[in-house]
Amino acid sequence: MFVFVLNCGSSSFKYQLLDMSNENRVAAGLVERIGMNDSILAYEPSGGEKVREVGAIADHESAIKRVLDKLVDAKIGVIKSLSDIKAVGHRVVHGAEKFSGSVLINEDVIEALKENIPLAPLHNPPNITGIQAMMQALPGVPNVGVFDTAFHATMPPESYLYAVPYEWYEKHHVRRYGFHGTSHRFVSERAAEILGIAKDEFNCITCHMGNGSSFTAVKGGKSYDTSMGMTPLEGIVMGTRSGDIDAGIPKFLADNNGMTFADIDNALNKKSGLLGISGISSDMRDIENAANEGNERAKLAIDVLRHRALKYIGAYAIELGRVDAIIFTGGIGENGISFRASVVERLTALGIKLDATANNSRGKEVLISTSDSAVKVMVVPTNEELVIARDTRDIVSKQG
Amino acid sequence: MFVFVLNCGSSSFKYQLLDMSNENRVAAGLVERIGMNDSILAYEPSGGEKVREVGAIADHESAIKRVLDKLVDAKIGVIKSLSDIKAVGHRVVHGAEKFSGSVLINEDVIEALKENIPLAPLHNPPNITGIQAMMQALPGVPNVGVFDTAFHATMPPESYLYAVPYEWYEKHHVRRYGFHGTSHRFVSERAAEILGIAKDEFNCITCHMGNGSSFTAVKGGKSYDTSMGMTPLEGIVMGTRSGDIDAGIPKFLADNNGMTFADIDNALNKKSGLLGISGISSDMRDIENAANEGNERAKLAIDVLRHRALKYIGAYAIELGRVDAIIFTGGIGENGISFRASVVERLTALGIKLDATANNSRGKEVLISTSDSAVKVMVVPTNEELVIARDTRDIVSKQG
Repeated sequence: MFVFVLNCGSSSFKYQLLDMSNENRVAAGLVERIGMNDSILAYEPSGGEKVREVGAIADHESAIKRVLDKLVDAKIGVIKSLSDIKAVGHRVVHGAEKFSGSVLINEDVIEALKENIPLAPLHNPPNITGIQAMMQALPGVPNVGVFDTAFHATMPPESYLYAVPYEWYEKHHVRRYGFHGTSHRFVSERAAEILGIAKDEFNCITCHMGNGSSFTAVKGGKSYDTSMGMTPLEGIVMGTRSGDIDAGIPKFLADNNGMTFADIDNALNKKSGLLGISGISSDMRDIENAANEGNERAKLAIDVLRHRALKYIGAYAIELGRVDAIIFTGGIGENGISFRASVVERLTALGIKLDATANNSRGKEVLISTSDSAVKVMVVPTNEELVIARDTRDIVSKQG
Repeated sequence: MFVFVLNCGSSSFKYQLLDMSNENRVAAGLVERIGMNDSILAYEPSGGEKVREVGAIADHESAIKRVLDKLVDAKIGVIKSLSDIKAVGHRVVHGAEKFSGSVLINEDVIEALKENIPLAPLHNPPNITGIQAMMQALPGVPNVGVFDTAFHATMPPESYLYAVPYEWYEKHHVRRYGFHGTSHRFVSERAAEILGIAKDEFNCITCHMGNGSSFTAVKGGKSYDTSMGMTPLEGIVMGTRSGDIDAGIPKFLADNNGMTFADIDNALNKKSGLLGISGISSDMRDIENAANEGNERAKLAIDVLRHRALKYIGAYAIELGRVDAIIFTGGIGENGISFRASVVERLTALGIKLDATANNSRGKEVLISTSDSAVKVMVVPTNEELVIARDTRDIVSKQG
């Protein structure tokens, strides 16, 4: 059984084709600049050479058809017929309070996604576009939605409620939802498996650090709290997002810097975070290089990121009471050796000890705490596409 | 030497007169509804009966003169002559980056306070009014400014920088300042004294919980991080302030609820916090009563407050690495027996154990952790007026 996985943005998408008989990825790639004259299609069959084509692709549906053509291409294809694709799994950002798990997509689900657009104005519209384009391109093939928010549906009210007028929650659904749920779920389950701890007894803190970052407190295998909030802006400092700030700052900027809501939102989402402090880049590798060359603002950006990471780990350790493991994942989490070390070395209040030799590793499953550390610290590479494909397989199989 | 201490709001002020030969308070009171027809003047000489007068008081200067009259009144007065008042200490909310300690007030200081008005538009103007009124009422008597922000001037950049465009910090002074500094300083110094630990080696977390609340990580006797931010809105949930929220919420409310910056600011400062969640009251006593009677939203308000308190304690424990003590102060911190217990019982990840019997105490200095607790937990009643009076005495004495 082959499952096609789609992660769709407004002018781009990432995709993978997985063979669920062995959970292997058989092809992957992305299409960017959809709707422009210089659209870029990238396609990479596993074990084969990467293909890159530049040229106008009008819309998402055309882009998907171009990708499907590659999958069955006589030379570079990986399957014989599109009928081998038995299901499509979609990453969907915002399921609000409606979806606490993955779901077979029908018209009612699409309507519900449309209703959630105010909660995810940047993300849900392209997710819907992707779903509709797949339905056109592969008629009759079931589509499954896997929500970034779903894993966090188990949070208790004290984690998800803001201390704002209660009618904002009742009428406007203002609450913490959390995102990156697929990743937090995958790495927490994988870590429990590695450590031989029953999933429903496993307490851990999952630190997903990439261009977007969020930390989650997982209690008994379930999300208990997470750093992203009603939107992906809250929490840890990210590549271009501010993470936590004083909610009084927007009005200050309006009063003293003439900024509108849209100006402030744009600045906090796209010009803040590591980029905002460093003034150099949103990419941790660029910032680490600059810091190593003595750039003070690059050092500051790393210091602030570390500080915020430590705060969340401490907060979640208290919330959990007992922590079995702390897990790093995502681009920075999996590859940022020196940053990871600098965080773990500062977790002494939890009796944690870094194994610096083991930590000298990129992109691999590895235990990076010493044998006498009070809490295990691990790196577990994330694989959101695999979770989406598994959920998709499971749901489609159940439909018979 | 007598010192008069003034804490001035826009239409009210609190005052105390202290005899610095023994640090005793000899009189205290407040004036409310200044500028209205039914202004209220309250005056209480120590050991004497409280006086309450209702009637029009036009402005702050008139109100201060009325209070000074009481102090030297033949029947209810506490000093013989106003010339016994050798100095006046003012609580000033925002010293920005200009003032890292208390200061003798002159025209340059008043100018600097005026420059800081954009950072504290609600608080600095009445503080300036109070200073100018005192200068009129007691000409020639030196005035000292004691800043709510000053104790936090020692925070390192990783604590005070937000991950926003760096020019917001450089041009508009957007950073964490922190408040309640006088209280955090007083209780941390007093706790070190009680425990017999040298101040500059003392690491503690001070939890000031009243109608406004903030927590501070004190490292080596100095503020290392604090929960209030650029404004007093950030951090712990308060009586009517939200504390931490997702910075994406303001734009959501503008887009979906037609609110302006002023509407949102007003709601987050005055209709949120315990009041917002409970819908009942901003006063923890009312909320605890309602919760005990089964009110679900009152219970939620307490749950959210506890949750946020635990998060900050955890965050600061990691930041400090080693914590000597956790200190509760302020109205809720000093008197909220059951709330305090419910927080301390959840600090197991830090090896903390509550002494429930010792905790059964209101408004007194007491150790509430067991002898085998890994960290000492204490209640230390705050006394901001005493700190202001001491600083005032010290600065005026130095002037010779």
